[in-house]
Amino acid sequence: MIAMPRIGSLTAGPLGTIADVAGVTVGHCTLDEGAVQTGVTVVRPHDGDLYRSKVPAAASVINGFGKSIGLVQVDELGVLETPIALTNTFGVGTVANAQIRDAIEANPSIGRDWPTVNPLVFECNDGYLNDIQALAVQESHYRDALHGCDAGFERGSVGAGRGMSCFDMKGGIGSASRAVRIAGRECMTGALVLANFGRIPMLKLDGIAVGRAMQQHEPEQGSIIMIVATDAPLDARQLRRLSLRAAAGLARTGSVYGHGSGDIALAFTTAWTVPHLADFVPVPALVADARLDPLFQAAADSVEQAIVDALFSAEPVTGRDGNRRLSLKDMQP
Amino acid sequence: MIAMPRIGSLTAGPLGTIADVAGVTVGHCTLDEGAVQTGVTVVRPHDGDLYRSKVPAAASVINGFGKSIGLVQVDELGVLETPIALTNTFGVGTVANAQIRDAIEANPSIGRDWPTVNPLVFECNDGYLNDIQALAVQESHYRDALHGCDAGFERGSVGAGRGMSCFDMKGGIGSASRAVRIAGRECMTGALVLANFGRIPMLKLDGIAVGRAMQQHEPEQGSIIMIVATDAPLDARQLRRLSLRAAAGLARTGSVYGHGSGDIALAFTTAWTVPHLADFVPVPALVADARLDPLFQAAADSVEQAIVDALFSAEPVTGRDGNRRLSLKDMQP
Amino acid sequence: MIAMPRIGSLTAGPLGTIADVAGVTVGHCTLDEGAVQTGVTVVRPHDGDLYRSKVPAAASVINGFGKSIGLVQVDELGVLETPIALTNTFGVGTVANAQIRDAIEANPSIGRDWPTVNPLVFECNDGYLNDIQALAVQESHYRDALHGCDAGFERGSVGAGRGMSCFDMKGGIGSASRAVRIAGRECMTGALVLANFGRIPMLKLDGIAVGRAMQQHEPEQGSIIMIVATDAPLDARQLRRLSLRAAAGLARTGSVYGHGSGDIALAFTTAWTVPHLADFVPVPALVADARLDPLFQAAADSVEQAIVDALFSAEPVTGRDGNRRLSLKDMQP
Amino acid sequence: MIAMPRIGSLTAGPLGTIADVAGVTVGHCTLDEGAVQTGVTVVRPHDGDLYRSKVPAAASVINGFGKSIGLVQVDELGVLETPIALTNTFGVGTVANAQIRDAIEANPSIGRDWPTVNPLVFECNDGYLNDIQALAVQESHYRDALHGCDAGFERGSVGAGRGMSCFDMKGGIGSASRAVRIAGRECMTGALVLANFGRIPMLKLDGIAVGRAMQQHEPEQGSIIMIVATDAPLDARQLRRLSLRAAAGLARTGSVYGHGSGDIALAFTTAWTVPHLADFVPVPALVADARLDPLFQAAADSVEQAIVDALFSAEPVTGRDGNRRLSLKDMQP
Repeated sequence: MIAMPRIGSLTAGPLGTIADVAGVTVGHCTLDEGAVQTGVTVVRPHDGDLYRSKVPAAASVINGFGKSIGLVQVDELGVLETPIALTNTFGVGTVANAQIRDAIEANPSIGRDWPTVNPLVFECNDGYLNDIQALAVQESHYRDALHGCDAGFERGSVGAGRGMSCFDMKGGIGSASRAVRIAGRECMTGALVLANFGRIPMLKLDGIAVGRAMQQHEPEQGSIIMIVATDAPLDARQLRRLSLRAAAGLARTGSVYGHGSGDIALAFTTAWTVPHLADFVPVPALVADARLDPLFQAAADSVEQAIVDALFSAEPVTGRDGNRRLSLKDMQP
Repeated sequence: MIAMPRIGSLTAGPLGTIADVAGVTVGHCTLDEGAVQTGVTVVRPHDGDLYRSKVPAAASVINGFGKSIGLVQVDELGVLETPIALTNTFGVGTVANAQIRDAIEANPSIGRDWPTVNPLVFECNDGYLNDIQALAVQESHYRDALHGCDAGFERGSVGAGRGMSCFDMKGGIGSASRAVRIAGRECMTGALVLANFGRIPMLKLDGIAVGRAMQQHEPEQGSIIMIVATDAPLDARQLRRLSLRAAAGLARTGSVYGHGSGDIALAFTTAWTVPHLADFVPVPALVADARLDPLFQAAADSVEQAIVDALFSAEPVTGRDGNRRLSLKDMQP
Repeated sequence: MIAMPRIGSLTAGPLGTIADVAGVTVGHCTLDEGAVQTGVTVVRPHDGDLYRSKVPAAASVINGFGKSIGLVQVDELGVLETPIALTNTFGVGTVANAQIRDAIEANPSIGRDWPTVNPLVFECNDGYLNDIQALAVQESHYRDALHGCDAGFERGSVGAGRGMSCFDMKGGIGSASRAVRIAGRECMTGALVLANFGRIPMLKLDGIAVGRAMQQHEPEQGSIIMIVATDAPLDARQLRRLSLRAAAGLARTGSVYGHGSGDIALAFTTAWTVPHLADFVPVPALVADARLDPLFQAAADSVEQAIVDALFSAEPVTGRDGNRRLSLKDMQP
Repeated sequence: MIAMPRIGSLTAGPLGTIADVAGVTVGHCTLDEGAVQTGVTVVRPHDGDLYRSKVPAAASVINGFGKSIGLVQVDELGVLETPIALTNTFGVGTVANAQIRDAIEANPSIGRDWPTVNPLVFECNDGYLNDIQALAVQESHYRDALHGCDAGFERGSVGAGRGMSCFDMKGGIGSASRAVRIAGRECMTGALVLANFGRIPMLKLDGIAVGRAMQQHEPEQGSIIMIVATDAPLDARQLRRLSLRAAAGLARTGSVYGHGSGDIALAFTTAWTVPHLADFVPVPALVADARLDPLFQAAADSVEQAIVDALFSAEPVTGRDGNRRLSLKDMQP
């Protein structure tokens, strides 16, 4: 059995997940009924009202074969105002509806005296294991995932990761964290991935090409969503820079950002929030750009480790038409 | 009564709408029931299967206070593969679901052996007239709009335009077209807008500031979606350039792309399609970039004229809480 | 004689130029020798050392037919670290060299213990009046312009504007300012343009199409550089938003962002600076995005007014091969 | 002594360099005089007149701490119209001037009846070994490099690579190529890099972390320029996608795209050209996007191999203030 590698030389946080960034919680709703092998995962940046206390955020679209909703506004305004939801490709619309209804319930002025709310839903295509054509994800599944948010959370074949494949094996949710010091200040960075990409010949574990030599390159229809959280005080411009370092972690696992893979990274900070109602927005002293390198390293390492974590956490799943993905743990070295 | 101005010196097509671009059709589904004043509009680039015969397209996000779905993939791949749908902000998820189900029905390999489909839905916030919190748009409304697509179509307070406001008056759907010659070849360009932006002091009609002098600048919660069609042979890079010229037409009406206005333009061409299954994609001889200026003029003029058309076509609407928007035609000069 | 219109309803500052933003100064070096009709203009955001006290800034490339240097780094880091230089297209390299040498002289650690410096030079093509092939701009001309920087400065056919054409008339340097209140705080916004675009049939003065009806659209080889300064506290993301509003002001004068026109806007703030050496960067409370609309209006109006100012300030110039541009003031109405 | 690894499983071309893409040639001018250790490298996409026969191209700015000139127009128009020049950071202006003069000499209508020419110069900071403050690069050095262009060319401490450092060792010019089949058609892809990035603890050779465990992360002041050539028929949108895959190859060597590293990739195709004078531009049948994966793999592998090639080709250099970089070949394993 292959041992799970530890990526890089930085120290992980106590939980070894994105929840090491204080305040961040994660919840899942898993659908496991015959051909329906899918679900919803929610990453909650803080436990307050995200619409009233918006979270600085930015994204990098590394390969845009993807159907997420919400990035146009995140790009423009540099904040998110709902929890981050992950689901299958055809669940985006329904989960967005659930986010809208939740936001209205919490803030009845939305769409009346206040502007509308920007849902934020990412997706991967789990159609190999899951009957994606069933559009099985319901609004209640989002709420179940949201209400289950906790600093302790499962990884692997759970939530949005239930039906995902990675390097022709079972993929899904993975997470990791890394701590660095910046000018004497401890900063925690964590990643959560929804890993659904890659063909086995491409796989590298900590740099070792454990897959076979590639004979023929079958096209991918997968994707990976990479969420990076940090407690370092950054603004949206810097968070965009940070999010792009997910591409380095991803590349180290063997990906070349395949044509059919929606590879999207989003980074947010818990160091400050943007109040919905304010004339002027207080901003903390930000990490100087020249001091960002440790955070860049932490983001890349966390993402690589989170992908490895997804592979090692995932249990085998049998789904649609008897399609089956084995776990990496069951593979012969 | 104010007369409707004719914008610029270029010639309009015979219909004076986006349908002058041969093959393009438009349909509406209008919801007019008390506080529910909203709907769906569909622009169909051709009457074939858009997933199998994808349409070169590109977008410009002029101001990204918007919640559309589909632009990430359009940016990456330079094609659209569903009809273009317009609706209210909280209808996006449901209309996307309808597009997905339609695409699966037409091509049952989607999400199985074939990749997933990219829904493409734009929105504006009609919350002043419409009870947007009701999430009243259903999947069937998309289908009704789609099936009603025709070269002859209504403008004004119809379809997605039903509840929209523009310069504190009734806005909605407008359309226009302009013909130009490029190296001896006649090219038709058309625009369709969903106009839901502006405060009355900003309004300019053909350059004339007909609104009052601005006293106080109330924030906009509006938006405008601008669809530009052309039969000129362009590729996605050039279509992005063309789409940005919508910003010029929009500015001439008085807009400064307000913070809360999601101002998005999408341009597509009917001159060629990209087959879903192909190893190599034939491309026609493209208009040289140095010959694009007439098309840029046509796009800007069409968009300005389409906004004017929306204002002059819109019938008054009374909606949520007795809120009412008058028609420009009813205003005193 | 046509009277110079006053654009919009906002109030101008006391100088009516970009220098109404406190601390901003402008200098010119004008070359006027037969076929050599060109020069350099410098906009200095503050009179300190810009490398040590960097200025938050961001740009919008509205049409990228342009050869500026420096925007890649401005996009990434959101600051400028030299004065802003404007010159003719073939003077960019030489002026960049001058900026580099100046920065090294002021800070001898540059390129040794410190990183290199990012020159920032914008350009338009003045080849109709100026023998641009002569590459007549020398490094000393940049220094002359820099040393001449002052809150009082000439506009029209001076500095980089010496050889520029606009709407087939004499163009060049124009400037304007507008004051707005944001949550009780007075904010000044100013613009300086290098106007070298347009064909006469397109010209609109305050919305009035004073040019003839367009018969044939000759391609432009012009460009416009639009510098927007503000004393409002904004960050780079917000400054990018602000810079894009220059496109609205430009469009109102008749431009559709022609293919051959490099239309680029840069916005900066004087409200705070980013120290070169710091672990953490203090940031003032920023204007909330929802309060940006008055600034957007001020930017658009300032740019339009600055273009008009360039046209009305420019003296006739005769240059290369006897080519001559008349002043708008000399045209018959 | 460490053996040079062979990256991936794809086949290299006969030369093992970017010149395996037929028509592409490379030339150097090397300055080696005491503290002046720098130079110019030119990549010539074809041996014709690049202004009259423009080359489809696109770039990805992975980290924009860089001072290149020319990318604004490449982004807008999707072509390059001069040879690609590489030099040190403070040589950009002078090399751009040389490119302008060369283009004018070949086409005297430039800047007269024709538009101006877009110089394209990339840079890295070689200030550790080279007295970069001397601005030693002259226009003649560009011409020497250009005239020396050949399919056979040196790598390592030559041309623009003369003074470059990589992972605290001697870096410089590296090159590689990979062949793939797309739908039965052989396509050659090659890369040339100017490698000047990284700290030794980060170094990975074919995935093996040969550097020491990172103790402290000193900031980089380096950069890497990655030029990718292909003979596959692609358009600018696809070339941008291809160029981004350089980020994957770069990440595999240990880079996390450090703050101070200008990491820029440019891709071009030799399959077709865009004539300067044409009303319509013929385009060959393009590789379908769904068939791009082998090219993506070839680009990533070529770039990684080219970086390795730079490290193994570079001879030790002693330069400014006795600063010295050893060759990887001389390091103990």
